[in-house]
Amino acid sequence: MKKIAVFVEDMYHELELWYPYYRLQEAGFQPVLVGTGDKKEYLSKRDLPAKEEVSIRDANAADYDGVVVPGGFAPDKMRRSKEMLSFVQECFDDGKLVAAICHGPWVLISARVLAGKKCTSCAAIIDDVVNAGGKFEDAEAVVDGNLVTSRSPKDLPAFMKAVLSVLQS
Amino acid sequence: MKKIAVFVEDMYHELELWYPYYRLQEAGFQPVLVGTGDKKEYLSKRDLPAKEEVSIRDANAADYDGVVVPGGFAPDKMRRSKEMLSFVQECFDDGKLVAAICHGPWVLISARVLAGKKCTSCAAIIDDVVNAGGKFEDAEAVVDGNLVTSRSPKDLPAFMKAVLSVLQS
Repeated sequence: MKKIAVFVEDMYHELELWYPYYRLQEAGFQPVLVGTGDKKEYLSKRDLPAKEEVSIRDANAADYDGVVVPGGFAPDKMRRSKEMLSFVQECFDDGKLVAAICHGPWVLISARVLAGKKCTSCAAIIDDVVNAGGKFEDAEAVVDGNLVTSRSPKDLPAFMKAVLSVLQS
Repeated sequence: MKKIAVFVEDMYHELELWYPYYRLQEAGFQPVLVGTGDKKEYLSKRDLPAKEEVSIRDANAADYDGVVVPGGFAPDKMRRSKEMLSFVQECFDDGKLVAAICHGPWVLISARVLAGKKCTSCAAIIDDVVNAGGKFEDAEAVVDGNLVTSRSPKDLPAFMKAVLSVLQS
């Protein structure tokens, strides 16, 4: 069964983490909650807990078929983790799924994978995305090769349709 | 596009409402948040807001192709709404989808649709389900004709797979 890392940290957006998590399960993949290793359990913006299944310090990108980065303010913490950035870079370089929604693209910026790529994001961080060289598009889901991005929780159905199309291609 | 009512009230479980909502959208259905009409916006157990799209007082079961009842403690409020119970009964009698997860079967009990039916529920309400004549099974998703039930948030992938199989049959 294909393993997909779903990054988690405090202040994650509850739906942007759990919708992909359960949707991947439904489609026959094995989502794994990969945290920064700072805690055993992280709390969403509204204190919904999520247990870390694997610490990024113990995670090997070679064992995974892709990564999903949820939004909320968690990406602000995730982008400080060198291990998480390396994990994203390795997935990206190997042509594996790299997906991010809402504020998730902050992690893609710091992992330096956005330059020249079509992508989207939460409106608040468009400047950051463009400054990183991303070709911003205002669409519910943008796919550029193995890169999938979306804007907000309302885009989750389109986001996961795009994610699964990349995983199943 | 087929409309599916997703019942909402205060203290709903965030994932048991929003996962089905977005998953139905992804599959090409039109989910509609139908509330008791007591408020314009309801708060989940952890205060995640959900706006009522239609009040049950204005909803006509004939316009819908089924109903999903999420869990949390919201079903304790929903089962007090005679309009919601009638809506469920009418869907059930017309052979349309009637789906409930976790504490959602409380609404099915009060709508008197469980007697003699294979079903499951949150462990805490098994006695209520059995006393209502339900044939309890401990499984992630139980389908009996147009009736779909599941036990907990962890069952969401199996729950929605079963819901979609009924809708698409």
